[in-house]
Amino acid sequence: MRPQDIIAKKRDGGELTAEEIGAFIDGVCDGSWADYQISALVMAMFIRGLSESEGGRLVRSMLYSGDVLDFSDIDKPKADKHSTGGVGDKTSLVIAPLVAACSVAVPMISGRGLGHTGGTLDKLESIPGYNVSLSTEEFRGIVKKCGFAMAGQTAEIAPADKKIYALRDATATVPYIPLIVASIMSKKLAEGLDALILDVKTGSGAFMPVFQESRTLAEALVRTGNDCGVRTEAVITDMSQPLGRFVGNALETYECIQILKGVSDGSWAATKDLSVELSARLLVLAGVSGGIEDARDLANSKLADGSAFEKFRDNVECQGGDPSVCDEPEKLLAPNVEKFEVLAEADGFINAIDTLAIGNAVCEIGGGRTKAEDGVDHAVGYESLSRIGDSISNGSPLGVLHCRSREQAEFVAARIKDAYAVSEVPIPGTSLVVEVISPSGN
Amino acid sequence: MRPQDIIAKKRDGGELTAEEIGAFIDGVCDGSWADYQISALVMAMFIRGLSESEGGRLVRSMLYSGDVLDFSDIDKPKADKHSTGGVGDKTSLVIAPLVAACSVAVPMISGRGLGHTGGTLDKLESIPGYNVSLSTEEFRGIVKKCGFAMAGQTAEIAPADKKIYALRDATATVPYIPLIVASIMSKKLAEGLDALILDVKTGSGAFMPVFQESRTLAEALVRTGNDCGVRTEAVITDMSQPLGRFVGNALETYECIQILKGVSDGSWAATKDLSVELSARLLVLAGVSGGIEDARDLANSKLADGSAFEKFRDNVECQGGDPSVCDEPEKLLAPNVEKFEVLAEADGFINAIDTLAIGNAVCEIGGGRTKAEDGVDHAVGYESLSRIGDSISNGSPLGVLHCRSREQAEFVAARIKDAYAVSEVPIPGTSLVVEVISPSGN
Repeated sequence: MRPQDIIAKKRDGGELTAEEIGAFIDGVCDGSWADYQISALVMAMFIRGLSESEGGRLVRSMLYSGDVLDFSDIDKPKADKHSTGGVGDKTSLVIAPLVAACSVAVPMISGRGLGHTGGTLDKLESIPGYNVSLSTEEFRGIVKKCGFAMAGQTAEIAPADKKIYALRDATATVPYIPLIVASIMSKKLAEGLDALILDVKTGSGAFMPVFQESRTLAEALVRTGNDCGVRTEAVITDMSQPLGRFVGNALETYECIQILKGVSDGSWAATKDLSVELSARLLVLAGVSGGIEDARDLANSKLADGSAFEKFRDNVECQGGDPSVCDEPEKLLAPNVEKFEVLAEADGFINAIDTLAIGNAVCEIGGGRTKAEDGVDHAVGYESLSRIGDSISNGSPLGVLHCRSREQAEFVAARIKDAYAVSEVPIPGTSLVVEVISPSGN
Repeated sequence: MRPQDIIAKKRDGGELTAEEIGAFIDGVCDGSWADYQISALVMAMFIRGLSESEGGRLVRSMLYSGDVLDFSDIDKPKADKHSTGGVGDKTSLVIAPLVAACSVAVPMISGRGLGHTGGTLDKLESIPGYNVSLSTEEFRGIVKKCGFAMAGQTAEIAPADKKIYALRDATATVPYIPLIVASIMSKKLAEGLDALILDVKTGSGAFMPVFQESRTLAEALVRTGNDCGVRTEAVITDMSQPLGRFVGNALETYECIQILKGVSDGSWAATKDLSVELSARLLVLAGVSGGIEDARDLANSKLADGSAFEKFRDNVECQGGDPSVCDEPEKLLAPNVEKFEVLAEADGFINAIDTLAIGNAVCEIGGGRTKAEDGVDHAVGYESLSRIGDSISNGSPLGVLHCRSREQAEFVAARIKDAYAVSEVPIPGTSLVVEVISPSGN
């Protein structure tokens, strides 16, 4: 099959067979399709559309383009969480050890931050020595020993996705649900899971801010996961404001360790609550708990008795990190970072937050990347002190920037201020879990 | 302007401004657009479509991406012919010297054969020594001295077209009229012409075999040429059978030299008639003749008195070719080529010919290329002896293959036989000129 013939078929709106999609993905992996042929087909897919069947074929071809991990030697259910990304979205660092503490193996392959959204790998690397570049064998060994491991995608996992995603980013073909689903699920299903919980963000800081689109994405992800034999559920959660208190790599890691240590604080209650909820749903999917109430109780007890914290501390040691950071999380707060309060300039109630603008501001002061090859400054970030529904008054603090210099702070403070919309009448706060998408028939 | 933003606009069906199309073509030329970005935009253009205005902007941007020749020092009208390509389509070799003999300068930039269609440059190279790789200065000098020159596209002429065309060929985005128009016209308008005649082929051997599509293409070409200030007319001509007698590079050159020498033969009457008709129309467009009848008379007289032949002979000398070939065209017929008759296997009347199949057969025995980087065997080809409407009988010759070996001949003879459809009742022969598309208002 010539690339041109497959491209022409989709160009004219035809439905591609499993064989044709397989030839495409094989060609991506072995280099026999040129980049310009890949991007031409992806553009045709974007405009002409992919049917449900084609989407499923694409996921399977991309999944089996690489290794699928085999944990059959671990006598526990295997489960993972994936989030579509947000601002201050840090629950992986709590969920992985918490679920592992409930006797579920968590082989978590994560990504780095790009644009306004953070990435789990960057957060972990704020722990001195922590190594996220594991070989498949090292990864398997740590899952077996600690109950969970967190690492980046290896070259063996879904290699087609890596190439296609880079091309999509450069050719304006990212925002199309079947392609997003194929990219996410080809990586996640390669983890050899029994259960998967998806955190699909919605609202101003989400990749897909419009609820209806978030739901369509969630439904497609759930359908694909279950079709591929993994018990999959999606929770559509609020990203209309930063999650919890901190945005920024070391700051978010600090927040998670405090939660794991049982330190209670209203400013990070949302992070804890969402972590427990996603963990509990994963425990049900993994067959560890019979019902959601039991699962919540189990998760809460593993947080309260310190066993989730111990799992995390073990993992930090296993992955080469400095475990003293777990005992003294204040070590994560760099001494040469200055704090600048961002003050409200009106009286009233916060009725909306442009969360994308806050994510971009943190990115601009060095906390994120604009290009995949950029580095990040782990220490900088933003501390969110006022939430939707809160009453504020002129001069009261909206949040605190953690910066390297006053110039940096002034550069972005005005934009952060503008991110808060204030009304004269109070509006109710947002609900953390907006909707749960279960497999059809459940 | 980021490539992604321009791509996204067309992806969503937006109309691109002159500035956006200019940024695209600049990016193609300076390498700041990657090949995969070019192909993604071209696919979006193909599927979403280009408006008339966008098509015009694309032609202008591609034209001015390179040099536009300036012949203002030549005190004659400048004119050229372009054909969309066919099988046995060899009129350039007659038209260029014939029009030059009528005191019109013909700066003819031509291409090579690809697939089933031949190319003027390949035909000329069957003359020993003939050099088609001229610098811009050499080209200008020969136009000035001989009245016409025939050469390949230099790197300075419409450089964007060369890159985009190669990508289109590999990404199934060739057959879209606005892109075809931009490719043809950006090269032809770079010749600095006053007048242009387009020979748009229709029928089984044409690039666009369906008449309605040929007409749409012809109309778009004519509109674009006139919009850009060049008096342009298109003639839609029959390509439902090979033009004239021979198909194959040296054989076609032989046929043209015979016509220029005034050797009359019914088997190549169509080549002569079409050459005279296109030349005459070009003479009217160029302002040399007041009406088409006068122009036909002038062209016929320049053939009859040998002055077109003398122009051709001069040009062969100027471009380094062996002029004795003009005096003894039999020299073009290679001695180590064998002839094999292709015989009819039924009685009746030829009612259709699969001209594409004949072109492909000649390509397969070495007379053409399947890839741009292939070489060609100038000597091989096909001699077409029976035409649509002719009566045939079992065992009578349809044509003659000129091959290197019996194996070659047998390999393609069956397919050539199958290319002839025979009916029991006679059908009328085809008309050479199907329709003339003049500038609107004329």
